[in-house]
Formats: sequence, structure tokens, C-alpha cells
Amino acid sequence: MIAETILSPVTSELALVEERLLQDIGGDVELISEIIRYVLKSGGKRVRPALLLLSAKLCGYCGGSRNIELAVAAEYMHAATLIHDDIIDRADKRRGLPSANNAWGPQISVLAGDFLYARSIQILVTDGDLAVLQTFADATVRMIEGQVREVQMAGNLDLTYNEYLNIMTLKTAALISAACRTGALIADRPAEDVAALTEFGLNVGIGFQLVDDALDFVAEEYRLGKPVGNDFKEGKMTFPVLHVMRTGSEADKGRIRELVAQETIGESDLAEVKAIMERYGAVAATMELVRNYLKKAKASLGSFPDSDAKRSLVLMVDFIGDRDW
Amino acid sequence: MIAETILSPVTSELALVEERLLQDIGGDVELISEIIRYVLKSGGKRVRPALLLLSAKLCGYCGGSRNIELAVAAEYMHAATLIHDDIIDRADKRRGLPSANNAWGPQISVLAGDFLYARSIQILVTDGDLAVLQTFADATVRMIEGQVREVQMAGNLDLTYNEYLNIMTLKTAALISAACRTGALIADRPAEDVAALTEFGLNVGIGFQLVDDALDFVAEEYRLGKPVGNDFKEGKMTFPVLHVMRTGSEADKGRIRELVAQETIGESDLAEVKAIMERYGAVAATMELVRNYLKKAKASLGSFPDSDAKRSLVLMVDFIGDRDW
Repeated sequence: MIAETILSPVTSELALVEERLLQDIGGDVELISEIIRYVLKSGGKRVRPALLLLSAKLCGYCGGSRNIELAVAAEYMHAATLIHDDIIDRADKRRGLPSANNAWGPQISVLAGDFLYARSIQILVTDGDLAVLQTFADATVRMIEGQVREVQMAGNLDLTYNEYLNIMTLKTAALISAACRTGALIADRPAEDVAALTEFGLNVGIGFQLVDDALDFVAEEYRLGKPVGNDFKEGKMTFPVLHVMRTGSEADKGRIRELVAQETIGESDLAEVKAIMERYGAVAATMELVRNYLKKAKASLGSFPDSDAKRSLVLMVDFIGDRDW
Repeated sequence: MIAETILSPVTSELALVEERLLQDIGGDVELISEIIRYVLKSGGKRVRPALLLLSAKLCGYCGGSRNIELAVAAEYMHAATLIHDDIIDRADKRRGLPSANNAWGPQISVLAGDFLYARSIQILVTDGDLAVLQTFADATVRMIEGQVREVQMAGNLDLTYNEYLNIMTLKTAALISAACRTGALIADRPAEDVAALTEFGLNVGIGFQLVDDALDFVAEEYRLGKPVGNDFKEGKMTFPVLHVMRTGSEADKGRIRELVAQETIGESDLAEVKAIMERYGAVAATMELVRNYLKKAKASLGSFPDSDAKRSLVLMVDFIGDRDW
């Protein structure tokens, strides 16, 4: 979890979000409630709610409970994509537990994801702010575009850095950015502050995704909640792999091509991949890029005066750069 | 297709909707465009756009192109549920062609459905009317609830008529009702007119679904676009089956139970089911109920003065009762 001290300015708000998230949302449909509780309980880090709440606090929001409601909506959207992602990846595990797809099958998982997304839209409509609605509607379209492109790019070792970063921006950063932007919107801040937090969230989101990429090769399964090397096994392109394809010897690049083309990747194959990664400092290069993005993110906060919320956002950026989950 | 004469008051609007539907909506993602074009081209009846446009005309809407945009959004939502439905039902065919699920696999189909739904929300947000947004957001949540309950009720022959009709109201009638309601909303009609068209759509929707149920036993595959008896084979409860369970002899009810419990249903099994249905006039009883709902639907139009649009809506109701697709 994110250290409590980092989140101290929004402790009480996060507790309210948590309470709302675990409320019975499936209505009469017990099965839906069960799946959603399962997905939402299984240890999400609540990164999007935390960023939305801190952004709102940074912007001086104190208008009621819109921050709570919208943080819940953002987490619902995220959870919906996780559920559908697991169908797409045929993932067995998510956060150390069997995935919903694995536990209930793809049929019900499709509907559980649809339901969470539809409920999040209902929350946004009830909130009734068209600028916020636009923000999340656009983010969702981008997110799905990114997911489709990622599926299409599976196994494509000729992806350029730019193509790759574009996909990650759509897939991961769009929603994180929407959460931060929303914090400024509900506090009725001028356009330049809204733009600053949008930009902040975009860079945090790209950094976040790149750490994910690095963790695929260096994390420990019990911390990560899913098997290490999973992205590689699935043929998903990650930055460390692309780094080798750009900087490696012909022999090593050829070996990576062979391995990616293989039907299944065993433990010894994975060890070989990791050895090649190490030869070119692929994880170090990824983390170097992470630092760049996170530095840009912090710079976006420059125009905001010092405050508890600002210090927390900076600490959270550092934390994202250092995370091992 | 719905006869052109029936739709004559909205011919030009429907042509615009059709044009918009087949526009390239996947943006840079060619694969998404391809799937969506495939799904939208494969002969949908555009029931929801037609009802929305006629309802708007009935209510005197003449404010611009909101009717076109919202009709497109309604059809996107419908198409999104069809794509996800096919994953849920593992359907091979849809409208006589291989389903998207069959043609592209469940992974990409999940995302294509998500994309269509997200785009429909984007259209609603751009339209910017919170009452319309609320209408569709609520309809979507209900629709998904209905789908989940239907999956849960598969093979449950002890379902009461009421339980069954509730599920169909959620699954099918909610979105059709939303389309009709929207026609009144964009024409700025008083609450009682909005309520009348909401009620109209609800009854049309239930009638529409019941005809679907009947067609599962009496349609011809080339008209229906999917195999006859498909619902029965899938263990989906339909009104004719429930009618037999309520009115049949112990022997026939027992036989239906045996058949529903069977792993697969062959052509001779299906012939036997049809014979049992005929013994109790199950399809006739279903069509009797259809007539009741459609009569109620027409009654909801009572307070509207006579007009081309009103005559068309009445003809459309009759057409839905007589359809063989």
C-alpha cells in the first residue's frame, strides 16, 4: 500500500471512498455484488482516488462530497478495465488472487466489467458536471484505443519508442490524468491550473506504466500479485525489451526474436531474457526514463503554492518511482 | 427491414443516421473500425434510432441534429451489447453472419464493445443534456442487470412469469424505452409527455422481446439470422417454455426438464420440444401476451394529437407484433 504518511492530507476522504467502494452496488443482482466486492477488495492501491483527492485538495476544493463520489467513479472505471483486461490477457491471477475471469469465467466477467463502467457513468451523471463527464468519457475512449493497439502490437519487436509511449499514454496515463484534472475542475480553478494537473497526471501515468514494465523483470511475485515475466510471456511489448532491440548485439536481438516467437516461455527462457536485459542495463534505462517523466510531473506542480497536499503529491510521485508492486 | 412506408416521416433522418453509423469511428485504430463497421453493417433493423426519431417528431422536435446524434448513440449502445452478448452466449452467428466473437475472438470483441459504449457516452456528453445522459446511463445499468440475471436464470424452469418479465424489461425494454423518452426530452415536452413515451417504449420493448421468444420456435433461420431454437439450446428461458411449465401435463413438463438438463440439443430433440409447445399453444399464448403489451403501448400515445409520426409509431407497433425476424 501507499504509505499512510504520504496520504495523510486525505486520510479521512480515502476512508470514505473505501467505504463507498465496498458498499453493495450490484443492487438486486447478488452475483454482480459478489464479483465487484471481490475485485475491489483484493488489494487495489487506490492510486486514482488518491491522486484525485490530493489534486482536489491542492486546488482548495472544499465544496462537499463531489471529490468522494468522483474518486469512487474513477476507481470503478479502473476496476472495470482490470476485469476486461484479464479476459483479454486470459490472466489467471490478479493481485495474488485468481482473476475474476478465472473465478467466474469470461461470460460473467464481461458483464461485471460492463456493470462497473455503467455505474461509474451513472455517478458522473448524478454529479452533473459536463466538464468532468467529458474528461472521463474522453479518457475511456483513449484507454480502450490503447488496449486495442497493445493487443495488435503484441510480439511486434519493431515498435518504435514513440509508438510504444503513445500506446502507454492512451492505455494507462489517460485515466490517471483524468483523475488529476478532475481535482482541479471541481475546485473551479482557472484553465491553466486544470491544464497543469492534466499534464501532471499524464506524466505520472506514463512513469507509472514504465515502472510496471520494469517490474515485469525484477519484481517478486508475492509483491507484484502476478507472475514475474508475465508481460513477456504474453508477448506484450515493454520498454526494457524495446531497449534491447535498439541497443543490443545482433545475436542478442535475434535471440529475443526467437524467444518472443516461441509458443511458450519456460523458467530457463525467462532467466535467459533477464540475463540479456542485464547485459544492456534495460531495467536501468527504463528507470532513467521513469525519472524523466516523474521530474516533468513535479515541474507541473510548480505554479501551486506550497501546501500539505502539494508535498503529498510530490512524495507520491517519488513513491511511484520506487514502488515494487 | 422495417417497411419504408412505415418510416416515411423520418426517411431523411434515418438516412443521416445510417451515414453517421458507417463513418469511421475507430479513429487511428483500424481494427476497431473494421469490427464496428462489420457489426453495424450486418443488417441491423435500427429499431431504436427509428423509435427515437419518430418519438422526437411526434413531440414536434425541430431543433437541429440532436435527434440524429442521439439516435446514433442509441444504436452504438445496442451494438455494444450485441457484441458482448455474443461473447456471453458464445454465439457463432449474428444476423446470418459469423458473430464478431467468432470472427475476431473474445479478446478483441470485449474491447470493440467497450469502445462502442464509450463512444456512445462521448456523443451524449457532447450533446450535453443531463436528462438525456441520465436516461441512457440508467438504461445501461438496467440492461446489464437484466443480462446478468438472464445468465443466472439459465435452465431455471421454475421462473415465474413475473420474474421472467422483469428480466426482459431490464434486458430489452429499458434501452428501447430510453430511446422513446429521449425523443420527448429533446423536444422539451412536459413531464407527462415524457412519461407517456417512456411507458410507450417500455411496453413496445417487452412486446419486442416476447416476439423474439416466440420466433425462437417458429422462425426460419434465413429470416432470423441465427439458428432457430438457439435460445432453447442455450438454456435461455423464454415465455413459450415457461407457458408449458405452467400449463403442461406432468409428463410433458418432465420431458422439458430432461431436455433442458441435456448437455446438447439435437434436431430431433428440438422437433420434440416444438411438438410439446404446439400441444399447449405456447407460441399463441406468447403472441396473445404480445398483443396486450402492444395495445398498452398504443394507449400511451392517446394524449398526442393525430400526426404522420403518430400513425407511423402505431404502424411500427403493429409491425413489431407481426415481424418474422
